[in-house]
Amino acid sequence: MSEQLSIINDIELRKQISAWLAEDVGSGDITTLTTIPKNIASKAVIHAKEAGVLAGIKIAELVFHTVDPTLVFTAFKKDGEQVAAGTIIAEVEGSVHHLLTGERLALNLLQRMSGVATKTKMFVDALQGLPVRLVDTRKTTPGHRALEKYAVRVGGGANHRFGLYDAVMIKDNHIKGAGSITAAVQSARANIPHTMKIEVEAETLDQVQEALAAGADIIMLDNMSNITMTEAVRVIKQTSPHVIVEASGGVTLETIYDMAKTGIDVISVGSLTYSFHSIDISLDLFEKKGG
Amino acid sequence: MSEQLSIINDIELRKQISAWLAEDVGSGDITTLTTIPKNIASKAVIHAKEAGVLAGIKIAELVFHTVDPTLVFTAFKKDGEQVAAGTIIAEVEGSVHHLLTGERLALNLLQRMSGVATKTKMFVDALQGLPVRLVDTRKTTPGHRALEKYAVRVGGGANHRFGLYDAVMIKDNHIKGAGSITAAVQSARANIPHTMKIEVEAETLDQVQEALAAGADIIMLDNMSNITMTEAVRVIKQTSPHVIVEASGGVTLETIYDMAKTGIDVISVGSLTYSFHSIDISLDLFEKKGG
Amino acid sequence: MSEQLSIINDIELRKQISAWLAEDVGSGDITTLTTIPKNIASKAVIHAKEAGVLAGIKIAELVFHTVDPTLVFTAFKKDGEQVAAGTIIAEVEGSVHHLLTGERLALNLLQRMSGVATKTKMFVDALQGLPVRLVDTRKTTPGHRALEKYAVRVGGGANHRFGLYDAVMIKDNHIKGAGSITAAVQSARANIPHTMKIEVEAETLDQVQEALAAGADIIMLDNMSNITMTEAVRVIKQTSPHVIVEASGGVTLETIYDMAKTGIDVISVGSLTYSFHSIDISLDLFEKKGG
Amino acid sequence: MSEQLSIINDIELRKQISAWLAEDVGSGDITTLTTIPKNIASKAVIHAKEAGVLAGIKIAELVFHTVDPTLVFTAFKKDGEQVAAGTIIAEVEGSVHHLLTGERLALNLLQRMSGVATKTKMFVDALQGLPVRLVDTRKTTPGHRALEKYAVRVGGGANHRFGLYDAVMIKDNHIKGAGSITAAVQSARANIPHTMKIEVEAETLDQVQEALAAGADIIMLDNMSNITMTEAVRVIKQTSPHVIVEASGGVTLETIYDMAKTGIDVISVGSLTYSFHSIDISLDLFEKKGG
Amino acid sequence: MSEQLSIINDIELRKQISAWLAEDVGSGDITTLTTIPKNIASKAVIHAKEAGVLAGIKIAELVFHTVDPTLVFTAFKKDGEQVAAGTIIAEVEGSVHHLLTGERLALNLLQRMSGVATKTKMFVDALQGLPVRLVDTRKTTPGHRALEKYAVRVGGGANHRFGLYDAVMIKDNHIKGAGSITAAVQSARANIPHTMKIEVEAETLDQVQEALAAGADIIMLDNMSNITMTEAVRVIKQTSPHVIVEASGGVTLETIYDMAKTGIDVISVGSLTYSFHSIDISLDLFEKKGG
Amino acid sequence: MSEQLSIINDIELRKQISAWLAEDVGSGDITTLTTIPKNIASKAVIHAKEAGVLAGIKIAELVFHTVDPTLVFTAFKKDGEQVAAGTIIAEVEGSVHHLLTGERLALNLLQRMSGVATKTKMFVDALQGLPVRLVDTRKTTPGHRALEKYAVRVGGGANHRFGLYDAVMIKDNHIKGAGSITAAVQSARANIPHTMKIEVEAETLDQVQEALAAGADIIMLDNMSNITMTEAVRVIKQTSPHVIVEASGGVTLETIYDMAKTGIDVISVGSLTYSFHSIDISLDLFEKKGG
Repeated sequence: MSEQLSIINDIELRKQISAWLAEDVGSGDITTLTTIPKNIASKAVIHAKEAGVLAGIKIAELVFHTVDPTLVFTAFKKDGEQVAAGTIIAEVEGSVHHLLTGERLALNLLQRMSGVATKTKMFVDALQGLPVRLVDTRKTTPGHRALEKYAVRVGGGANHRFGLYDAVMIKDNHIKGAGSITAAVQSARANIPHTMKIEVEAETLDQVQEALAAGADIIMLDNMSNITMTEAVRVIKQTSPHVIVEASGGVTLETIYDMAKTGIDVISVGSLTYSFHSIDISLDLFEKKGG
Repeated sequence: MSEQLSIINDIELRKQISAWLAEDVGSGDITTLTTIPKNIASKAVIHAKEAGVLAGIKIAELVFHTVDPTLVFTAFKKDGEQVAAGTIIAEVEGSVHHLLTGERLALNLLQRMSGVATKTKMFVDALQGLPVRLVDTRKTTPGHRALEKYAVRVGGGANHRFGLYDAVMIKDNHIKGAGSITAAVQSARANIPHTMKIEVEAETLDQVQEALAAGADIIMLDNMSNITMTEAVRVIKQTSPHVIVEASGGVTLETIYDMAKTGIDVISVGSLTYSFHSIDISLDLFEKKGG
Repeated sequence: MSEQLSIINDIELRKQISAWLAEDVGSGDITTLTTIPKNIASKAVIHAKEAGVLAGIKIAELVFHTVDPTLVFTAFKKDGEQVAAGTIIAEVEGSVHHLLTGERLALNLLQRMSGVATKTKMFVDALQGLPVRLVDTRKTTPGHRALEKYAVRVGGGANHRFGLYDAVMIKDNHIKGAGSITAAVQSARANIPHTMKIEVEAETLDQVQEALAAGADIIMLDNMSNITMTEAVRVIKQTSPHVIVEASGGVTLETIYDMAKTGIDVISVGSLTYSFHSIDISLDLFEKKGG
Repeated sequence: MSEQLSIINDIELRKQISAWLAEDVGSGDITTLTTIPKNIASKAVIHAKEAGVLAGIKIAELVFHTVDPTLVFTAFKKDGEQVAAGTIIAEVEGSVHHLLTGERLALNLLQRMSGVATKTKMFVDALQGLPVRLVDTRKTTPGHRALEKYAVRVGGGANHRFGLYDAVMIKDNHIKGAGSITAAVQSARANIPHTMKIEVEAETLDQVQEALAAGADIIMLDNMSNITMTEAVRVIKQTSPHVIVEASGGVTLETIYDMAKTGIDVISVGSLTYSFHSIDISLDLFEKKGG
Repeated sequence: MSEQLSIINDIELRKQISAWLAEDVGSGDITTLTTIPKNIASKAVIHAKEAGVLAGIKIAELVFHTVDPTLVFTAFKKDGEQVAAGTIIAEVEGSVHHLLTGERLALNLLQRMSGVATKTKMFVDALQGLPVRLVDTRKTTPGHRALEKYAVRVGGGANHRFGLYDAVMIKDNHIKGAGSITAAVQSARANIPHTMKIEVEAETLDQVQEALAAGADIIMLDNMSNITMTEAVRVIKQTSPHVIVEASGGVTLETIYDMAKTGIDVISVGSLTYSFHSIDISLDLFEKKGG
Repeated sequence: MSEQLSIINDIELRKQISAWLAEDVGSGDITTLTTIPKNIASKAVIHAKEAGVLAGIKIAELVFHTVDPTLVFTAFKKDGEQVAAGTIIAEVEGSVHHLLTGERLALNLLQRMSGVATKTKMFVDALQGLPVRLVDTRKTTPGHRALEKYAVRVGGGANHRFGLYDAVMIKDNHIKGAGSITAAVQSARANIPHTMKIEVEAETLDQVQEALAAGADIIMLDNMSNITMTEAVRVIKQTSPHVIVEASGGVTLETIYDMAKTGIDVISVGSLTYSFHSIDISLDLFEKKGG
């Protein structure tokens, strides 16, 4: 199912991968070029040295194919699969020069994306089937938003907006700038496409009431206690069942279940993408072939 | 001193920042554009919500100036300073539209770079003045190498090579490709510029001996026990005091001091850049000015 | 008010303008370079040769400033103003070489954008204050979407979605691909961010019913008769007053008023951006200054 | 024959198409990605909904192949053919995801280019075989010059210069800058490559005389009456049969024949590219294939 | 006068200079960054170590200003001036870091361009005022065409066409492809803009006759003896005084005068740009200022 | 062996070739497009018109394949081979249009690179097997560094550092900036990666002593007499056999042998890349095939 959700612009991605390769390779992989004969081919295995949820296998393949389209990449695992330490994830076969040139970038991306998916999976599991959607935020690594948001989906989460351009999200600073929640929502509604939603961040029940009256499509409860959230959900759903209630702020694996029980629809967790542990994955050459 | 080390190509950096802004802003910051009058100016404060070593203040400034060169950015803290939670780091003044458009990227970079500097500082402190140099690796975030390596310097560490292009580093896969350490070192020496060094990764004392005999400039002891490392250092320094000894593999804050006591010259720690905790830093508008 | 809505990424726009200049200038404006002394300065006036709604004055300024940041551009009219034939719109003063190099591109953009705004204004006027929003489509000129959508706003219209990325719009081909409207809506709802809306294109009342039942946020009545549209509006608003009703298909100045009277909320008109008449605007040098 | 004239730099064109796709697709075609299973293949037909002269079929193919090189594109009509409403122009077969992602851009370009070719054909037909060449101007859509000038050729017209770089064209503003027609022509002739021609725009018979005496290669009669033009042609051809006479200004389908009868060699018509009617062309999926 | 001819697209040139700087600077000028304190300012002098015709002083300035817009560049000599060995050409003042980062590229360009201008001047002088125009060819260094063609003008020469796009030049391979000179000229004439000229390369008098009859605007005599050239000039000018006669092939300083005496109009010399001697120019820091 | 050393980033190279093609082709190769039927195929031969060491055959192939991946390129000679005048180097077969569009750039690069290789070979031969390494400098043509440094290797030379980023090279200006050689070396050593070497340029024996004491890895003797150099070598090798001694300054084919006899390890010669004679190589179509 995660496959279906690959909302990634391949053309842009190839350019990005080229730029990332250039960052590492620069004027040339001097070690490989001067130690290994040019025409040696080999098979390399990519294996997990740590357990986790795999994400990014297509990206790793794309890195190798950007370096050399004739490399043969065979995946044994798919994105979304839980892999144990020691699992062989894929094989790549072809020019040793090109295998080694692509190695670091392919692994860096695979490790990072699997790290995001693995962390997401832990939060999803902690929700134990409650009717709550776990989503990410815009706190992604610059240059990696599409990949990290994809990895969240692979881990069983969903995405919040992709950027500043695809939904209105009225926060504290916008309220200050507009004068009030009401002014901000009205001004936005008059000027945005009718195809776009408005979300308002509320810190108090009064703000919840104002956002509701102003016609927000989504109300985000920011750093509220579970008791206050329960009350906010009651107030909102009573009059406006279509309004989506999102909660955010200091969510941990320990607190997420109780938070979800307050009746909210969506929980957003920034740390899915800004504070994850990369899964250790490595590449080994194992057999040298003619030349 | 870290200032002196800003090995960053500003022209390339500006292009990178533009691309990162485009990732977030896309067709426009719809919320700001539709809720806040166009000509409102304000002052915003950037403050630490968590303690850490500050890194990236010039980068944050560059983000805001890429959005709008007329924003006035005043820094109260410098890279390398330890800041406590609550510290005001900088002020930015000007168009509210432009402040809010640059906010997320400026903070993301400042949080990440300060995270790297803070982690580096912890490892440097753990070495308690031993004559050992702490260095990073190529396990950096794609697209962020220059910034992360700079942040390592800010935290008191030093840099390993910048990429595949500026030093020879013969690892397991190259040894397999070349046939032996000796063959790899000889082939490299004959073909690289005389201005370049050769480092060899050794897993056993036999490999250390072979690397030494082959004329490596740097020998990296990979995942050895402290006892074996002590012996390796003795063997190397006895005959070749100019050869630099580096150690790597599973270094933690708990183990680094004892490892350093083995007499090695350099310790490389990949987790400085691939597994750090971003420091929480935020921006608040506090005063609106005419228009 | 249109000023407030300039949802344009300036950094990207400057790059685009540079590329457009390069298309025209290539290896150099050979005529200007070989006929006019290099250091001559002059004032040029930009005037309308035809009546219309002005749009793009800031873009014209940006073109000249991309060629030469020291040119002094003074606008006498603002975007959104109705200008009569003969009106002086702006003056630009500085190097004659640079004035003439930027002339064609600045005029081309001003003429085109004013053409879109003028056409939009005619449709808006034809609606005579009915509570209906006039919007554009994705049938914009490749490379000009941001500018043309801005010109629609200048003319008093509003925007539909900006691209394929910021709202779901289920059309005939998606329904075929998914199997049914219901399947398409359900699959989309499960997989899109909760911040995004779903619009469904319906050609019959049965499709309207299905879209409504499936939970569409917006229903677009495609090429229906006014009688059918009136019935569709009744059906939708009766049960789901929050659902927005959009109409589309063959809208002309003659038919739009009666169409709007059916009770629909939004009318989308593709021809605003793909079939407009550019307003004739020209530039004249009138005074040569020292050198 | 139009095939032979494809003066288009393919490498640059592919880059341009990628940028145009990015404008529309952004972070992803969310509708297609979330409503249609990933591996569904289908055949799509492109058909004319309006009569016209086809232009851009190779460009449409290039759009689809930029999205996905494995799509199979089969053209049934060639550029330059007159197609009736209802005609099937081409089929494209392959991944439904990729067909729908490329659809809008491919159609936008095909509609626009066919619009230019159709308008050009009408003017060419109006000349009824008179020995006059119909040409375009630099009033093209920014970013579309190569495509629009190609479409003019497809419609049976010819091209004026491509940009500011490939011919000298001395207009009113240059004459003011240089002091006189004579000064402008002499300065240009001394400084341009000997491979380049000089065209002078003349508004009066006196200016025609001056341009002729100064040695212009082409004289453009700007907004003259047919009587004056007839006299200008006589004056020019009498002494300098090699000088080309071009006419311009307010040319319409009604006036062009009489204008051509004055004996001029070339008529330039700006509206070919800045005021044309896009031909309505659409794409339909018609059969879904396994997955 | 050469100033007047700066047919250079500045915007493109800045991008090119950035790319060339990146080639040299890469991840940073490690020597300067680690040996010289960051805030030291100084004055540097650029002086000729060899005599020659100066060309490229504005380009050198642009290099320094691309590195750092606050550097103060003062030129003491202008393009086109003959400078003796030891002459101080310019001073640059500001950050030592930035002076040294830009040094190599600024000098490389200045040396190369002055080399082209100096060589051109020698050929121009050898023509001793004969009414012959000396021109370059397309045998320029890839990426340097605009700069090298500008340097030819600075040296007193003129330019041949700029590229494949701005004039027709029918050579041996085109004649083979078209079948005959006549076929080639006719096909070109029918299909090129009326603003463009046709040049034909002829190796024999028969080819000259054929080119003349076919209506070539320029005939290039390729590798003919002076006697044959004299005859060719006679044949051409007798019937078609407007046709320009160009000569090419193995031109040297020794042979050019006699070749010019044959009556030809233009001599093209490829070696102006592909075989020149760079003029030795260097930069010295001479005074360190505060910090 | 030179093959093995192709330290060239192919992805970047393709982009560079596209840009160089665009410089020449611009809006289209108007001659080829209008004189030769579109579908004609032919075989073209590339042959040397002058003797030299071939370099760049893969680059020439890459140029043709950038224009048209279906062209069939067959090389008869390899980089590093000495070719006599008249030798057929390669054949290319396919679309005549594409052969002629790529011709000029492919030849320009092949001629230049072979020129560098040929000049290098002459210097290498002049060293008659002495144990001295001949190296290039950073005085390369902007945009051509990778290609020219590769050609030096093809000619039997070796490379100095690639740019400002991969080795420290302390010259006169850095010594002035730092205060002394000792200060410069110490500051560099403290701040550069341990993987990098430090070279110091010395003009006197005192400077040699200071550089040696400061711990330079390489000492470059700048413009010294052979007698002084002999003494410098003695001083250096006596105490520090690992320090590499490089010589530079006014090296010619006449002086290089005696210079090499002084015992130095490396001679750097800037003129290898800034003052070479391009080898004359041309392309001929010889047979036209169907269409």
